[in-house]
Formats: sequence, structure tokens, C-alpha cells
Amino acid sequence: ATLAWAEQSTVAPAPNGITIPEGYKDWRLIAVTQRPETNTLRAILGNDVAIAAARAGNTNPWPDGAVLAKVVVKQKNHPRYPTAQVPGEFVHAEFMIKDSAKFASTGGWGFARWLGEKLEPYGKDANFVQECVGCHTTVQQTDWVFTAPISLP
Amino acid sequence: ATLAWAEQSTVAPAPNGITIPEGYKDWRLIAVTQRPETNTLRAILGNDVAIAAARAGNTNPWPDGAVLAKVVVKQKNHPRYPTAQVPGEFVHAEFMIKDSAKFASTGGWGFARWLGEKLEPYGKDANFVQECVGCHTTVQQTDWVFTAPISLP
Ligand code: HEC
Ligand code: HEC
Repeated sequence: ATLAWAEQSTVAPAPNGITIPEGYKDWRLIAVTQRPETNTLRAILGNDVAIAAARAGNTNPWPDGAVLAKVVVKQKNHPRYPTAQVPGEFVHAEFMIKDSAKFASTGGWGFARWLGEKLEPYGKDANFVQECVGCHTTVQQTDWVFTAPISLP
Repeated sequence: ATLAWAEQSTVAPAPNGITIPEGYKDWRLIAVTQRPETNTLRAILGNDVAIAAARAGNTNPWPDGAVLAKVVVKQKNHPRYPTAQVPGEFVHAEFMIKDSAKFASTGGWGFARWLGEKLEPYGKDANFVQECVGCHTTVQQTDWVFTAPISLP
């Protein structure tokens, strides 16, 4: 949990060449979500560009340079308070990187995912992004992003 | 969502005199939780002292100066992907502030909560903390804290 950059950089790039965004676990909160069908809890975090855009309501489209991270963990009952669903095992971290020129063919976003504690790149080859795009097309009218940022007072 | 400090400071203190921790919405992630019985999603965030302690596994006891924030939102179905439970209305923000001398009578933690977008202080008088303490006593063996921090790789 306290890897220095030298260690982090040993994470292999995704099959489409995207490298894991450095320091994502220090990013600030955009939203919290839950998926009953997979028994998972998720946090959506944003880099500084994304946070500034979210707070300014400037998210359709999100600006170039914005990066959204989603970290997914299994949920489990709290041992002393069983109705509370709390984080279990880490499942994956995934990212959307906004660069409307570079990623023009996929809605302006670069997609990548790393699995498990070892952060193994997801996907056999670069075509894995078709899976991401296939689902995120559902929200094309909100710049391919499902999440509406929480507005904290 | 982008209040300057001058505006934030108009939030009234809790009945026990605790003032709302400045800048809590910029704090980093400790955990994500969900409560089916209240239909709410929660993010637990920590100030720098808390994040350092969480990453070092130094949480029993948490060090003086650590502050934990919990932000609670209603959950709702995503309009375009209904199984996904996503943030709705903001419910409250609440805090535990570790100062083992100052808050010796309540496990070393100061408790406070603010309700709704207007951040109205919770509690008729300083005795509201008995409600917090009553429930958090369940986890006295983990320094009165329910949350085990997520360890992100
Ligand atoms: C079966 C549908 C589906 C597929 C496939 C899918 N996603 Fe998503 N994704 C979602 C939904 C729904 C959300 C928002 C709710 C949530 O947190 O689960 C989301 C959220 C995200 C977010 C947070 C930003 C946002 O849009 O809300 C990122 C980042 C993300 N997905 C990356 C990916 C990547 C990378 C892939 C492919 C490797 C992928 N997704 C594949 C459904 C999908
Ligand atoms: C009925 C039980 C109950 C009461 C009453 C209660 N809490 Fe909690 N609290 C929990 C549980 C369970 C969690 C962890 C799971 C979650 O996120 O809901 C928690 C988590 C927290 C956290 C995050 C740190 C941790 O312990 O995990 C804070 C901060 C917090 N509560 C503050 C308060 C304050 C302030 C009050 C009183 C105004 C209060 N709580 C009253 C049950 C309670």
C-alpha cells in the first residue's frame, strides 16, 4: 500500500499501451457506487483536472486531461455490524483518460483496467476496449461517463 | 461546491463545540460502504494524519491528529443502467477527531455530524455524542472505529 514510484512503475501497461496513472490512490472523491449483481463497492476518483471540472459542473464534455479512476472491491458484512456492507478483497482498478485527439476513435477516452493486488493488465490484445466502449456507449449523451459527481457541501 | 473558507466558516459548530473540519471534501479515500437498511452509500475519507496511519497499518490506536470523515448519500438506480446503485441526495457528513487527552471521556474521539446541504449541526445539546458512543462502543477493540481501510495496490 505504500509503494514508491520505482516499484509502481513495474506495473505492466495495458494491451493498448496505456500505463497505469501514477498516484491514483491519492486522487479525490467523485462518487461512490454499488453493484448488487456482482456484490461490489466502488469509488470513483478523479485527478486534479477531473476534480476541477466536476466542481465547476464542466463535465459534458469533460476537459482533455481529465482522468477518472474506478476502484472496485468485493463487499462483505461488517463482522460486528452485519448490515453494514464494507470493503473486502480488491478486485480491479480501471481508468478513463480524456484526450479527444488521441482517443478520437473511442469517444475521446482511453480505457484501461488492471486486475487484483498484482495489477495485471486486463485484455488479451488492444481489442479489449471494444468491451468497455460497447457498454459506455449507453451514456454517450453524457460524454461516455456514467457517473454524476457527488456535490459535497 | 466550491465555497471559499470565508463561506465555509459560516457552518455552525456542533452542540459539543466541534467546528466542521475545513476542506474535508479534498481528503483522500479510506473506504466505501453501503447500508441496505437505510438505502445509503458512504465514503470514509481521512485527513493527512489518518491517511498516513492507514497506509502504515497504524490504526489501533489511530494517532492523535487523525480525523475520519464519513459522507453519506442516498442511493438510487442509475437512469441508464438500473442495477448500478449511484449517489442521490446528500444526507450528512460526520466526523471522528482523535485527541486522546481532549476527548478522553469518549474513547479519545470527538464526534460531530452536520445534516443536509445546509450542514445543520446535529443534536439538541452536547449529549448527542452518547448516541454515537453507544453504537461505536461495539468496536472498542478496534479503537472505536468500524472501518478497516482499503489497501489499494
Ligand atoms: C457491462 C457494462 C460495462 C462494461 C463492459 C464496462 N463498464 Fe465501466 N462502468 C459501467 C457502469 C454502469 C459504470 C458506473 C457505475 C459503477 O460504478 O459501476 C461504469 C463506470 C466506469 C468508470 C467511472 C466513470 C464512469 O463512466 O462512471 C470507469 C473509469 C470505467 N467504468 C472504466 C471501464 C473500463 C476501462 C472498461 C473496460 C475494460 C469498462 N469500464 C467496461 C459499466 C460498464
Ligand atoms: C446505530 C449505530 C451507529 C450510530 C448511532 C453511529 N454510528 Fe458511526 N458508524 C456506524 C457504523 C456501522 C459505521 C461503519 C459502516 C458505515 O459506513 O456505516 C460507522 C462509521 C462512522 C465513521 C467512519 C469511521 C468508522 O468508525 O468506521 C464516522 C466518522 C462515524 N461513524 C461518526 C459517527 C457520529 C458522529 C455519530 C453520532 C452523531 C455516529 N457515528 C453514530 C454505526 C453507528
